[in-house]
Amino acid sequence: MTATHQSVTQQIAAITKAARQAQKSLAGASRADKDAALAAMANAIDTNRAKILEANATDLDRGKENNTPAALLDRLQLTDDRIDGLVSALGDLASLPDPIGNVVRGNNLPNGIRLQQVRVPLGVVGAIYEARPNVTVDIAGIGIKSGNAVILRGGSAAETTNGVTIGVLRDALESQGLPADLVQGIDELGREGANALMTYRRGVDVLIPRGGPGLIRAVVENAAVPVIETGAGVGHVYVDASADPQKAVDIVFNSKTHRPSVCNAAETVLIHRDAKDTGIKVLTALQDAGVVLHVDPTAATWVSDAVAATEDDWSTEYLDMEMSVKIVGDIDEAIEHVETYSTRHTEVIVTENLSNADRYIAEVDAAVVMVNASSRFTDGGQFGLGAEIGISTQKLHARGPMGLEELTSTKWILRGDGQIRH
Amino acid sequence: MTATHQSVTQQIAAITKAARQAQKSLAGASRADKDAALAAMANAIDTNRAKILEANATDLDRGKENNTPAALLDRLQLTDDRIDGLVSALGDLASLPDPIGNVVRGNNLPNGIRLQQVRVPLGVVGAIYEARPNVTVDIAGIGIKSGNAVILRGGSAAETTNGVTIGVLRDALESQGLPADLVQGIDELGREGANALMTYRRGVDVLIPRGGPGLIRAVVENAAVPVIETGAGVGHVYVDASADPQKAVDIVFNSKTHRPSVCNAAETVLIHRDAKDTGIKVLTALQDAGVVLHVDPTAATWVSDAVAATEDDWSTEYLDMEMSVKIVGDIDEAIEHVETYSTRHTEVIVTENLSNADRYIAEVDAAVVMVNASSRFTDGGQFGLGAEIGISTQKLHARGPMGLEELTSTKWILRGDGQIRH
Repeated sequence: MTATHQSVTQQIAAITKAARQAQKSLAGASRADKDAALAAMANAIDTNRAKILEANATDLDRGKENNTPAALLDRLQLTDDRIDGLVSALGDLASLPDPIGNVVRGNNLPNGIRLQQVRVPLGVVGAIYEARPNVTVDIAGIGIKSGNAVILRGGSAAETTNGVTIGVLRDALESQGLPADLVQGIDELGREGANALMTYRRGVDVLIPRGGPGLIRAVVENAAVPVIETGAGVGHVYVDASADPQKAVDIVFNSKTHRPSVCNAAETVLIHRDAKDTGIKVLTALQDAGVVLHVDPTAATWVSDAVAATEDDWSTEYLDMEMSVKIVGDIDEAIEHVETYSTRHTEVIVTENLSNADRYIAEVDAAVVMVNASSRFTDGGQFGLGAEIGISTQKLHARGPMGLEELTSTKWILRGDGQIRH
Repeated sequence: MTATHQSVTQQIAAITKAARQAQKSLAGASRADKDAALAAMANAIDTNRAKILEANATDLDRGKENNTPAALLDRLQLTDDRIDGLVSALGDLASLPDPIGNVVRGNNLPNGIRLQQVRVPLGVVGAIYEARPNVTVDIAGIGIKSGNAVILRGGSAAETTNGVTIGVLRDALESQGLPADLVQGIDELGREGANALMTYRRGVDVLIPRGGPGLIRAVVENAAVPVIETGAGVGHVYVDASADPQKAVDIVFNSKTHRPSVCNAAETVLIHRDAKDTGIKVLTALQDAGVVLHVDPTAATWVSDAVAATEDDWSTEYLDMEMSVKIVGDIDEAIEHVETYSTRHTEVIVTENLSNADRYIAEVDAAVVMVNASSRFTDGGQFGLGAEIGISTQKLHARGPMGLEELTSTKWILRGDGQIRH
């Protein structure tokens, strides 16, 4: 066991070293070079789709044999449409501006030294995710555009698909004269490889976990490398007393039902007790669409056929056609509930009252706070970032949707003429 | 043991909760309120200096009894001059612009939603440091100005000084109508308290270790909260073949001897073999000032009275009047040496050759890369940041000197009029 562990750590050491070496060729690459690499990657995914779909069928068959839940099989599955999506996403990346080299700040110091802070790649980005072969292509593309090498651990369920996809991407890079080790997979090293990647200091510059709460907690608690926590989304829509009834119905309905399985779907609606008529309209619309409501005692008197909410429901991320409902006495009670149960992803108020809108924005602590808009807008594409590697729910480095800039760091450059400190 | 540990964790839970509650009063505070608090803190430190110096004498006596090394006792010691420095640093903080509320990015989305990314406080900042009671005041001041609550673990050696200082600062905050729990110390919880602070998820938003390599490694490896790694500084000055001799002597001499005990002091000089005359001048100047040279075989033929360098010397942070010396055949060898042994803090090239300057800037991976200037300029004050909470050697969130902005996060704010996603 110890011998195996040693050997996995040594393999991770070699893989991260190869990534760091490969990344150098990208650090000095022009935007044109990187965009050409992305075009080659897009073309390779497009022309090798049969091979990728075949590998995916193997993973799907194994998943069915292992009685994998249908929702997970759906995430695991690639189709021609989904591959088209990946190809066009790589093309979109090529059309985005290159953040590398941007001057963030700069000035001349009193002693004549010229000071600049410029944007540079992070270096080596690690990603640990589950059963989403599309993430393999997304992160590889965003990594290349932002000048980083990536090391991918996509999990055993998608192992065959990821292996073939990574092979296709590596060949595409080499066809452009770039090192294949800009994109490496470590699925074959299993869980031990993932653990070694998390704990090997200075191996990766950042590690991004994408997946369920269990995966994210395991990475955050065990990693010795910098981590960006993503994704968990217990979000609320608060319908204020002054809410416009139609906006309230539209926004709550869209926030819950537009795509219930994703992190920016709302999980709880809080309704001011003076907005009872509006509230009943909101809840009825949800029920009519098949949403199971978990209601507090007051809401139970507003609608029938609802389930009584338990304490656990307030912190549950249903990711499904279910929603918790709580009637509050004032905006303070709403803010306090959000503070207690929110995962600080996306929080929405529906109101026509300016001071309540301002208070909500100021006092609710979340990556994204919205007034009169659907929580579903928390998305890199919707924000105009052009690409998204995940949605950070932590406050360090990146908060909310992470695009290309969030995969960069900075370097201070000082140009002097012999200055010394007195 | 388990019972005690439980109880310490519970205390950390209560302390971090109190910090989060206290921080709310600061989140909405105006710049004028925060500056008034800083002025009150400065005044309180000034007028309570006798009490603080008395507490410091107790720590110093205990340190002497425990045979604490002189360098550590020096760091531990407060004097009237040093207290004057702390008072004026708090005054300087008040004069700095307030980063909170700054709009980082913003635009209108195609659907009419108004999008803004604004700067907000991180929330609760933890700091773990050793035997530097001045850091207690620095971090409390920077924390308040940037809208954060701070939790301080200053270590057993400075426990009495820190306890009294924190008490003085808390009273000053209360005198301004702010909660005392904006500044809390956890020295009385000992090492177990520090461990609990590191591992209590969502307790602090960021933890900053400041101290020796052992302390920093312990925090980085054990923490389950986001950490910013600071300080370790094995930095190099590379004297290129084209270096101006006088600049080379001045810059190497200043980088090593101006203040050898700090992280931006250089530890190794790399000299191009074609710059032998310049190199001999550089090395002789260092030896004349009492610097012990650890030299490679070639440098051993350039100067006498030097020690033969060992492999360990190349990665040693002497923090003293000692320096490693290596003669290189070309700039590639210099860059490779830096890449192998640098802690990526501050790296300097002395050159008159434009393409070598550009290559060094592009290829050397460090928080700060300088051309023809002393490494001692890596400092928040020198950079014009106005305040410094440490020097980050990691790439995530902050890199190089960290000022007020580095203690902030951002929040996305969306203002709509009923928009939903189609």
